[in-house]
Amino acid sequence: MTSSPQSLHRVNYAAPRSFGTLLKANLKETLFPDDPFHEIKNEPISRRFLKGAQYFVPIFEWLPKYNFKLFKYDLLAGITIASLAIPQGISYAKLANIPPIIGLYSSFVPPLIYAVFGSSKHLAVGTVAACSLLIAAIIEGKVNASDNMPLYLSLVFTATLFSGLVQTALGLLRLGILVDFLSHSTITGFMGGTAIIICLQQLKGMLGLKHFTTHTDVVSVLRAIFHNRKEIMYTRKNASLQKNKKPKLFWVSAIAPMVTVIVGCLFAYFAHAEKHGIQIVGHLSKGINPSSIHLLNFDPKYISAPIKAGVIAAMISLAEGIAIGRSFAIIRNEQIDGNKEMIAIGLMNIFGSFTSCYLTTGPFSKTAVNFNAGCKTAMSNVVMSICMMLTLLFLAPLFSYTPLVSLSAIIMSAMLGLIDYDKAYHLFKTDKFDFCICMAAFFGVSFISMDIGLMLSVGLALIRALLYIARPATCKLGLISETGLYRDVEQYPDANGIAGFLILKLGSPIYFANCNYVRERILRWIRDERSHTISKGNEIEFLLLELGGITSIDITGVETLLEIRRCVQAKGIKMILVNPRLGVLEKLMVTESIDTITKESVFLTIEDAIDACRFSLKCSDHIKTENLAIV
Amino acid sequence: MTSSPQSLHRVNYAAPRSFGTLLKANLKETLFPDDPFHEIKNEPISRRFLKGAQYFVPIFEWLPKYNFKLFKYDLLAGITIASLAIPQGISYAKLANIPPIIGLYSSFVPPLIYAVFGSSKHLAVGTVAACSLLIAAIIEGKVNASDNMPLYLSLVFTATLFSGLVQTALGLLRLGILVDFLSHSTITGFMGGTAIIICLQQLKGMLGLKHFTTHTDVVSVLRAIFHNRKEIMYTRKNASLQKNKKPKLFWVSAIAPMVTVIVGCLFAYFAHAEKHGIQIVGHLSKGINPSSIHLLNFDPKYISAPIKAGVIAAMISLAEGIAIGRSFAIIRNEQIDGNKEMIAIGLMNIFGSFTSCYLTTGPFSKTAVNFNAGCKTAMSNVVMSICMMLTLLFLAPLFSYTPLVSLSAIIMSAMLGLIDYDKAYHLFKTDKFDFCICMAAFFGVSFISMDIGLMLSVGLALIRALLYIARPATCKLGLISETGLYRDVEQYPDANGIAGFLILKLGSPIYFANCNYVRERILRWIRDERSHTISKGNEIEFLLLELGGITSIDITGVETLLEIRRCVQAKGIKMILVNPRLGVLEKLMVTESIDTITKESVFLTIEDAIDACRFSLKCSDHIKTENLAIV
Repeated sequence: MTSSPQSLHRVNYAAPRSFGTLLKANLKETLFPDDPFHEIKNEPISRRFLKGAQYFVPIFEWLPKYNFKLFKYDLLAGITIASLAIPQGISYAKLANIPPIIGLYSSFVPPLIYAVFGSSKHLAVGTVAACSLLIAAIIEGKVNASDNMPLYLSLVFTATLFSGLVQTALGLLRLGILVDFLSHSTITGFMGGTAIIICLQQLKGMLGLKHFTTHTDVVSVLRAIFHNRKEIMYTRKNASLQKNKKPKLFWVSAIAPMVTVIVGCLFAYFAHAEKHGIQIVGHLSKGINPSSIHLLNFDPKYISAPIKAGVIAAMISLAEGIAIGRSFAIIRNEQIDGNKEMIAIGLMNIFGSFTSCYLTTGPFSKTAVNFNAGCKTAMSNVVMSICMMLTLLFLAPLFSYTPLVSLSAIIMSAMLGLIDYDKAYHLFKTDKFDFCICMAAFFGVSFISMDIGLMLSVGLALIRALLYIARPATCKLGLISETGLYRDVEQYPDANGIAGFLILKLGSPIYFANCNYVRERILRWIRDERSHTISKGNEIEFLLLELGGITSIDITGVETLLEIRRCVQAKGIKMILVNPRLGVLEKLMVTESIDTITKESVFLTIEDAIDACRFSLKCSDHIKTENLAIV
Repeated sequence: MTSSPQSLHRVNYAAPRSFGTLLKANLKETLFPDDPFHEIKNEPISRRFLKGAQYFVPIFEWLPKYNFKLFKYDLLAGITIASLAIPQGISYAKLANIPPIIGLYSSFVPPLIYAVFGSSKHLAVGTVAACSLLIAAIIEGKVNASDNMPLYLSLVFTATLFSGLVQTALGLLRLGILVDFLSHSTITGFMGGTAIIICLQQLKGMLGLKHFTTHTDVVSVLRAIFHNRKEIMYTRKNASLQKNKKPKLFWVSAIAPMVTVIVGCLFAYFAHAEKHGIQIVGHLSKGINPSSIHLLNFDPKYISAPIKAGVIAAMISLAEGIAIGRSFAIIRNEQIDGNKEMIAIGLMNIFGSFTSCYLTTGPFSKTAVNFNAGCKTAMSNVVMSICMMLTLLFLAPLFSYTPLVSLSAIIMSAMLGLIDYDKAYHLFKTDKFDFCICMAAFFGVSFISMDIGLMLSVGLALIRALLYIARPATCKLGLISETGLYRDVEQYPDANGIAGFLILKLGSPIYFANCNYVRERILRWIRDERSHTISKGNEIEFLLLELGGITSIDITGVETLLEIRRCVQAKGIKMILVNPRLGVLEKLMVTESIDTITKESVFLTIEDAIDACRFSLKCSDHIKTENLAIV
């Protein structure tokens, strides 16, 4: 190209940044995107230490400012979630096939740990149905709970320890990024599928009960059915209330499980339900959590099951805990640090596994109740913890009369609330692929198994992610008349192509997985354009590639650009690059491809490129005519 | 925002495209990016049929136009590659632990099939060292070749069949995209690693030979050493010649293996090498390929090995065959269709497995020789095939005297040429991550195993791909003075921010895997910007998000945009979207988020957005002063 007109804007060919600078920048973006230490940076060392302690142990930050006014709110919220924790703890422990008392233990120690290390103000700690079932399903594969309860229980504690270790490690290594790959769609489907299988299990339990009673007497069958009806009524009530977001009614929903348990206990006690064949929870011994360190089992014969259960449950419970923490933080316009949350949740599971607790996280339902009950700080968890301690010390035996059907009703009630039809319908209406990801989890969990369902869904989400990369959208730009703007001709039908030019905007990024596609697609654009314009008689002379949308490029991508250049050159077309971003330009310079492409073929704006191309055309025409004149 | 100034460009809010349209467009981009039927589209039906046949069976296209002049070139090229095929066939069959005659068979049938279905003009069909070794390694895991050769051989044929089926299926399903995920860096490392282990194996063989001869007599040791030296000389010569790209010298490199074999044979024959303990290939029976359909073995006891070997070898041989075909097509400015090539390679392996051939593809070295020898069409493969037939029918027994060391020398010679130091150094210099991917394959293959090395490397490449998505680059835009252009302030240091505005350009795409990152990053930009500007006294009032680089967005991404809006609004900042592309705008409209964001907050250019914002500011100031005046 000959000398270009004066008005051109200059592309900046500063020397590429060094490898060290790039590595540091990339690592920072990958691992510390939220710049967690920004508050500490400009402080004196003594304050840095305090700030650092406050950063890692948030209780240091909020406890000094704590006052009685806040405590009133937290007390109320704490008692409310404690009343939820007792029936849920017993129920979910049943789901995990472990003694009900473990469920109560699990609401005593972990909330205390979370109150110290957790950064969310609204998260309420507790056991969750999905993970309870998941752990049971995986560990049952090795050891049958009814055959060898001590071994089974020790493996559950070991799985909890592994979960805690994995969660803490992910947090310390700042790998919150891994949890990001569990999308909302996956979680929605997974929760729905889990809810379905849990409900079916409970129904089976109820049928089992019926079958059992027919063997004894007719009266108890009727009673059982009557009882079932009552529970189902409760169930429906709960389910509808859980959906009902009116804050005033949430109390009913929050207290309902406790009421169910109390009514059930009274019924069972006075009707001597046990004698009529209605199963009850059975003996619950007084006393707080015993140590379980000696129970942790690393026998190589069994170790694979707790590791698998621990790792999968760790990811799911993190996804649930962090997602719910974030949601409420956003409502209150606060920020929570995912990696810090991971450490807090991980620590609470590690300590939990030492003190006879199994896997805990921040369940959706309990956290919502906590939030609605007006909690102000993590103190509500402490209040719940103290309530649980009192229960364990004095009231535990009272709950031994709880009929199992009450628990089933509580579980089903909670589960029905987890099936989020609206969300699924919303996904179906707005994004079919997200809907497929959700359904893969739902049907996979319902019909195959929890881990396979989850992997199917995550796999689909990853394929989608990779397809985004493998097939980056390109579009043809045209000039919107009277504006000087170049925009997608499909989006803005009044944008017109410019004779002799084909202007393409490439998607991001270009590299090995999509370079064949990008080349084929560009050649197809040229082919299509030619078949259109050939009738009009104006051939394409310049291919302008708008690279503003390309954030990065790898070696294969650079080679592809050179190949495209060679291909179009053979067709008599000159390739021009417009507005390459920093990363792309640097790579072009490092690989010295810029020397092949020539700096004269790179422009900062489309207008500049077009002006320069026209100028060079005119010059060459001029030279041609001059030559002719000389001849 | 109040009414905006007249000069604004209008964002196009046309109704979103229907799901069907989108699905069709996406499927087309994913599976038919090269629009393979574009030639057929506008033709009458009779011609369509012919064109279709020519498309699926390329020989119909080139054979009618074939003439004697072209044949002269192809004859020469065909004889050249045949002279390469005989020694390589025997050598690589030894690598795969199968009878050498199978190697010769494999250069007879598959080239004929490829000549019919293949679309590359330069690809020369043959067996390859890496896949030979891979198949041997995996099948040896089940059956020892020396213990039960018939079973071992039948599993090798079965693996070939599976390879062919996988390749054909990938081609028919147009899943060439899967092969794209084997990047050049991976292939470079994999080839290098394979070359190293093959060379070590051959050295071991040579040491074994030495050991063997010490047991007989001193003279033969010296002879063996002398012989080894001679071979090593050949080796060096070959290696240096293969690197030497001067076309005139390539003949030497092409003929060298054949010369090595002939010299070796003569030496072995006249020196009665066999009696002196120098191992020779042994009996090779006359006659062309026998059928091997009855040998295919689907015994469930063994089936896992041929399936695994078949699938991995299919992918690697496809990657090699297609890459090499493409490279030479680009040199000659022709196009080849990856999916069609897959079908051709697949069919040749399916038929191969029926006719006592094992896995074939288009090896780098042979194709290069074919190209340099001046081949014009796939006819050179037919010529090679006929040469092989003649060899099998009449000359096979002559090659039975080939000493094994000659074969080792040939293999090592070829292998040393595969170690691409320059490429590795280039990767190191220009892209450290690509270099890591390459080294993962190299060291994985050398020190662990071929399949694990490959998976390590592909895994790393995928992680990189996912990181691209998980951490899309955002940058702050500033106005380059006196130009009206908004560009990255890091890339163009003379670009200045505009008081009251923070303009960010987002990378592509926004969805579940990166939405947390995008939110955190934007909040960090705001924090950083505030800490800078707070001293100057001008607060940010508007956050402009330039979305031109975002090709797609999912539900989670849309929710993230809304969350960002809520977060910044709480800080008193208004969020403005600039230039959303078609896919993004459609998703905003489908989810009705555009009603929350309001259409008045979406602009086509940054200038428009800034003008409108300033206008609205002035208006509100005006109203304020008016109100004051009234008061």
